[in-house]
Amino acid sequence: MKQYAAMSREELLEERSDLQKAYKGFEEAGLSLNMARGKPAPSQLDLSMDMLKILTDAEDLKSESGDVRNYGAMDGIAEAKQLMAGMLECDPANVIVLGNASLNIMYDMVARSYAFGVMGSTPWCKLDKVKFLCPVPGYDRHFAVTADFGIEMINIPMTPDGPDMDTVEELVNSDPAVKGIWCVPKYSNPQGVVYSDETVKRFAALKPAAEDFRIYWDNAYCVHHLYDDESKQGKLLNILEECVKAGNPDMVYEFGSTSKVTFAGAGISAVASSENNLKEIKKHLTIQTIGHDKINQIRHVRFLKDRAGIDAHMKKHAALLAPKFEMVEKFLNDEIVSRGIGSFLHVNGGYFICFESLPGCAKDIVAKCKAAGVVLTGAGAPFPYGKDPEDSVIRIAPSYPEIDDLKKAMEVFVVCVRLASVEKLLGE
Amino acid sequence: MKQYAAMSREELLEERSDLQKAYKGFEEAGLSLNMARGKPAPSQLDLSMDMLKILTDAEDLKSESGDVRNYGAMDGIAEAKQLMAGMLECDPANVIVLGNASLNIMYDMVARSYAFGVMGSTPWCKLDKVKFLCPVPGYDRHFAVTADFGIEMINIPMTPDGPDMDTVEELVNSDPAVKGIWCVPKYSNPQGVVYSDETVKRFAALKPAAEDFRIYWDNAYCVHHLYDDESKQGKLLNILEECVKAGNPDMVYEFGSTSKVTFAGAGISAVASSENNLKEIKKHLTIQTIGHDKINQIRHVRFLKDRAGIDAHMKKHAALLAPKFEMVEKFLNDEIVSRGIGSFLHVNGGYFICFESLPGCAKDIVAKCKAAGVVLTGAGAPFPYGKDPEDSVIRIAPSYPEIDDLKKAMEVFVVCVRLASVEKLLGE
Repeated sequence: MKQYAAMSREELLEERSDLQKAYKGFEEAGLSLNMARGKPAPSQLDLSMDMLKILTDAEDLKSESGDVRNYGAMDGIAEAKQLMAGMLECDPANVIVLGNASLNIMYDMVARSYAFGVMGSTPWCKLDKVKFLCPVPGYDRHFAVTADFGIEMINIPMTPDGPDMDTVEELVNSDPAVKGIWCVPKYSNPQGVVYSDETVKRFAALKPAAEDFRIYWDNAYCVHHLYDDESKQGKLLNILEECVKAGNPDMVYEFGSTSKVTFAGAGISAVASSENNLKEIKKHLTIQTIGHDKINQIRHVRFLKDRAGIDAHMKKHAALLAPKFEMVEKFLNDEIVSRGIGSFLHVNGGYFICFESLPGCAKDIVAKCKAAGVVLTGAGAPFPYGKDPEDSVIRIAPSYPEIDDLKKAMEVFVVCVRLASVEKLLGE
Repeated sequence: MKQYAAMSREELLEERSDLQKAYKGFEEAGLSLNMARGKPAPSQLDLSMDMLKILTDAEDLKSESGDVRNYGAMDGIAEAKQLMAGMLECDPANVIVLGNASLNIMYDMVARSYAFGVMGSTPWCKLDKVKFLCPVPGYDRHFAVTADFGIEMINIPMTPDGPDMDTVEELVNSDPAVKGIWCVPKYSNPQGVVYSDETVKRFAALKPAAEDFRIYWDNAYCVHHLYDDESKQGKLLNILEECVKAGNPDMVYEFGSTSKVTFAGAGISAVASSENNLKEIKKHLTIQTIGHDKINQIRHVRFLKDRAGIDAHMKKHAALLAPKFEMVEKFLNDEIVSRGIGSFLHVNGGYFICFESLPGCAKDIVAKCKAAGVVLTGAGAPFPYGKDPEDSVIRIAPSYPEIDDLKKAMEVFVVCVRLASVEKLLGE
């Protein structure tokens, strides 16, 4: 395939003319496709339908922590702690099980630090400046949380091994205003990067200038492999254990949920952390709530049973998802990478593929797609303040459309990338 | 029955001796009974078991707001708004449906005001002093929320028509530090008072010194009648409508939930308020969550259907609860009121009976009961900072024990009240 960079002006003009024709065809087709959010497809949701029928009589509703239909067990029922500890690979004693989504926990964690401080430190609302490190590209909803509280966000470049740890160490260990960092350590959103052992160890060995610095370890995709083959599954060191070993037991909050295991928005969520941190969390949590939905907790326990049950269930998701990811990657390789006008990292899990276009093309590509009926995550979204310095990153979410629609969407996408690239190269 | 106040010292000594014997019998019986929290009895929870089986196929999970199994509908599905609007007697457009309990909404509302202010006013965390008015006796968990944020709480005496409105008006209309008032307007916790029409109208007509003053209208027991007979049901004016009429449309947040309709802790909750207030709430809510558990929302919709369905369901609760309340009231009348050593207001709904002992006896009575195996809400709990100035208020929660246990518990209770009263009169 001829590289665009090697084309003459005439060749580029001809290419543009061909692409414009193809694009016009899409516009006329009146498509309505969505690759914007990491939503499970209906076929994935169908996998958990039996969970809705699993609680049939009063016996099913008895837990070690009492009758789940009544008040109590503010920090989660024992069986749900066990289940989520299995997922996060930690001791159930280090787990609190909460409501239907981990985003809410993360938000509340920042909100509590803002209002009350962390273990006796000054509440963030009383400080002139609070900063968070944000590996980029990253998860837009993380950045929205810190932005809501007026926290200054600092971009940290991502590498194929995780965040650039030289920069992380430099900032965390020197600046007492740096109070946190957002991490999606496994199959990161949106690049699908799995943090290397060295990265995790360097995180655990940080020497923060701020006593109330915490790592916000959003292990959203911990069991979300695309492949059964273990050699293709990302292995992530256990941050809780590494922090203990490094003498920083209180430095991390880990988050997880079943949002993309059972039902998106009707799952259960958990935070795992040190005893000290959990004690601090519970102090305010017990004022905020009498308890979360324990019926849904036991519903998940009865359905998923344990880690082995989760893994077996995730294989069913993988079977539906892998062909979609492979198709997207094939389109990108065949049509884009081959022409030298974009790149991406191959992913083995998670919910996204992160495409990087020629600099200055991302917004244009997203706009072109939209006009042709294909909705993508907004360009810039994976960056704090929505500002992609290079205007080159586009998050692709292949999960929701069924495979035929995904194919149509990708046909549009690659033409839009090519057209935007040609126009860029032509200096338009 | 002879009044204790009319007894001679000798008679009191003899009475004490008899009561001590009875009390010793209770101690030896090794009872373990609980009248502490407003928890539904298992028999009440059984009433909603069919709700757990009502979602059987994918069709049941389709709502006007989309597939409830997936992300979306951040502020609740349309059908759930309709259901909760029916319960709160307002327009669905004024409703947001949230998670499993209204306490969490109330907490978050205070937390948001603390961090961000209210419609552009100064965030409470930036103010030297924020005050809330607390009608007393009231709900301990309300007071715990304001205490958590360091908000100064001011006692407002309750009357049989609601809070003492002269005092409320004086403080709200003159002091810009007064930002809120906690109200349980129907079958109040713990007295069972229904706010009179005049009280509601005076609330709606407040002229707050603070632009960010809001009434926290916790309509927790709006449909929780004990009697089918309408003449025995409390009628409460609609505060949202009254506030609009009075030119104060943004002055109230109303809260409700199905916690004591279906399952305690696994219900759905709602806030009803003006368009402006909801817009303000959603601005931050959309950062905090992608959405609440919509499967549980539609489960409630399919089970309860509408207001008529709720009312029919509440009659079943009433049939279980009314005999318990009547028994408690009979014990109090026969054994306590008749002796002139305590009083209470007769209630027609809600979850509590509020007993008032001779001054200085409440703590002693609660301690005596506890030692005899009967757990009551801590004396002082219905007051800010846990301080009952008269040490006379005890909240009785008759709902949880089955009727035989409740009888035993009340036998202990009345003996403890009599014994504590005798000792008080004897100057011990």
